[in-house]
Amino acid sequence: MTSYEPVQTSNRILMGPGPSNVHPRVLTAMATPLVGHLDPEFLAIMDQTQEMLRELFGTTNRLTIPVSGTGSSGMEAALCNVLEPGDEALICVNGVFGERMSDIVGRCGAELIRIDAPWGRIIPPEEVKAALQQCNPKVVAIVHAETSTGILQPLTEIGQLVREHGALFLVDTVTSLAGAHVGVDEHLIDICYSGTQKCLSCPPGLAPITFGPRALEAIHRRKTKVQSWYLDMTMIERYWGEDRSYHHTAPISMAYAFNEALRIILTEGLETRYARHERHSAALKAGLTAMGLELLAQEGYRAPMLTTVGIPDGVEDLVIRRRLLQEYNLELGGGLGDFKGKAWRVGLMGESCTQSNVFLLLSALEKLLSESGYTVQPGASLSAAAETYL
Amino acid sequence: MTSYEPVQTSNRILMGPGPSNVHPRVLTAMATPLVGHLDPEFLAIMDQTQEMLRELFGTTNRLTIPVSGTGSSGMEAALCNVLEPGDEALICVNGVFGERMSDIVGRCGAELIRIDAPWGRIIPPEEVKAALQQCNPKVVAIVHAETSTGILQPLTEIGQLVREHGALFLVDTVTSLAGAHVGVDEHLIDICYSGTQKCLSCPPGLAPITFGPRALEAIHRRKTKVQSWYLDMTMIERYWGEDRSYHHTAPISMAYAFNEALRIILTEGLETRYARHERHSAALKAGLTAMGLELLAQEGYRAPMLTTVGIPDGVEDLVIRRRLLQEYNLELGGGLGDFKGKAWRVGLMGESCTQSNVFLLLSALEKLLSESGYTVQPGASLSAAAETYL
Repeated sequence: MTSYEPVQTSNRILMGPGPSNVHPRVLTAMATPLVGHLDPEFLAIMDQTQEMLRELFGTTNRLTIPVSGTGSSGMEAALCNVLEPGDEALICVNGVFGERMSDIVGRCGAELIRIDAPWGRIIPPEEVKAALQQCNPKVVAIVHAETSTGILQPLTEIGQLVREHGALFLVDTVTSLAGAHVGVDEHLIDICYSGTQKCLSCPPGLAPITFGPRALEAIHRRKTKVQSWYLDMTMIERYWGEDRSYHHTAPISMAYAFNEALRIILTEGLETRYARHERHSAALKAGLTAMGLELLAQEGYRAPMLTTVGIPDGVEDLVIRRRLLQEYNLELGGGLGDFKGKAWRVGLMGESCTQSNVFLLLSALEKLLSESGYTVQPGASLSAAAETYL
Repeated sequence: MTSYEPVQTSNRILMGPGPSNVHPRVLTAMATPLVGHLDPEFLAIMDQTQEMLRELFGTTNRLTIPVSGTGSSGMEAALCNVLEPGDEALICVNGVFGERMSDIVGRCGAELIRIDAPWGRIIPPEEVKAALQQCNPKVVAIVHAETSTGILQPLTEIGQLVREHGALFLVDTVTSLAGAHVGVDEHLIDICYSGTQKCLSCPPGLAPITFGPRALEAIHRRKTKVQSWYLDMTMIERYWGEDRSYHHTAPISMAYAFNEALRIILTEGLETRYARHERHSAALKAGLTAMGLELLAQEGYRAPMLTTVGIPDGVEDLVIRRRLLQEYNLELGGGLGDFKGKAWRVGLMGESCTQSNVFLLLSALEKLLSESGYTVQPGASLSAAAETYL
């Protein structure tokens, strides 16, 4: 046979849109020898994971579990379990992930109604209000933190509008969960999903999800089967419930890691953790601004865990990112969609959200940008960042 | 907050239908710090993984990748990418996994045609031949090793029939891959998927899959979008191809583990590995038979990696399995469907497939069964097993 050499990886500093760096305790948990997916020891882990996840989501919803796939499988599970052919779905689109939800709505055979806002701007609650006067959707869906633009969407008012209208409120918190307050019950969210590889600082591979009682009722009232067998909550809830009936083999090692990541998050404390994200984000944003760079997300609504910053004219996106990776072992995210080649996406998520990472990135960018012919005032960016910590 | 104690797990001997025990090198690989899913280092791992996976599947198919979900997501990906509403699918059903395929066919809006065989029996090629004279399916699907019954299905003749008929041959090798010869190209298989947690001895969470050129052509000729966004190969193939365009965040740590598991498999050598499964399986089966127990799978077609054995009258399924777990740290599988409460499923898969595990199980069963009032001739089972090794 061909000889296959073991792979080598570098110890990257992950400051892109995810994955973020993973705590050594989570990595160790991944390496725990396996037990079976129906082993009483594993069932105990499942129960404990659900309790911790409810605390993180801010919900008492019984059906609060990790879906056995990455964040996008959570998006699909959220939509395809409640939508049936012919249903209307109102999707708020101001970035890649709203577009993705729209795509999935069509694949479910549901009728898509869109509210569009420009990239980098929030969806104004008035527009949701106006739209709800024109249609009768089963679901209204919105992204909490748009990873493609760096916006953090306010949820309170929209949650109330949707509830008054009798629709289900579906929120994507892939990027925000564990980095900013989500509050599922408080915001009247009926369906909420996330991913593990962003502010949870767990490897990618699971999609935490929660369905409230109104969503569950809609699922149980379905006339047709959920089109995805793998993501069908009417079956999956029996494995997570008292039946414990086999549906598919749970991803055991990922479940170990997720359990440990949740323990680390709750031990830090949710408010402390959100404040940490705010603090380092403020320093980063001050530093980037002092460097003369433009922050692309609407002021007042910038996400703490993901900052989009404009690439100055004449600076080559790929050259800078390659040098950051090769010379600093530092991964930055490129722009997606409308922002492709025009923006970088800087993540400060979970374990990656540290003061040292802020300073390293600012100092590296300062050097690489000035070598690319962009004029920077030496040290201004670091000073501005440092000031925010005083 | 509530205090969440770290979970404790026991060092189980996994002899159920999967997960199987995982090699320490694979566990260590899981604990490798993460790189990004578009990092050149990760792309190199993806390329190498594809090469190794092609060797294991016995194929030159370009689109040979791990799907980001457990084995059942592979089943869904296999079916939903080629089936469109109105297509006919001929599904061979002789256990749980044929039933599951039938269920998915319906969810794809395709027309289901079934060939049924009794649990524990193979699907006779003549019946496939006869069925093909009555219908014109786009896909003919069959399970290679039925985990619910312990059958290993011959593929050669059916593969030829399906090809002559112009249909796509879809084979489930969740349980067989890396434990018995699959030979995708040799058997004219167009679509083949597996799981990682059985004979590959990697944690559950990925579904290796391969699509041949005829399957790809069918996918590219589709008139409708694939109903699952998450499993849509028209998009996923661009991430695995030269484009490297982002679809969903790859499960990095699982990819590390899978890569290492493949390296271990190919280093052992495929023929050596299959022979090992045959050897220990023969010992196990001889031992169980000498204990007076009945093997439920059709003689001549018994799978090496999974043995179904009848539970004697008067013996309580759950009591024995609980005692095996508590007193021996040993997990055995219970029966599914028709075999629920009537059979045990003994897995000898990958790392779990060892001589010591065979002897431990036989000796434990001998003790527990005789304590349950079932008459066994002391030592007969171990002698019979030992003889097969001479």
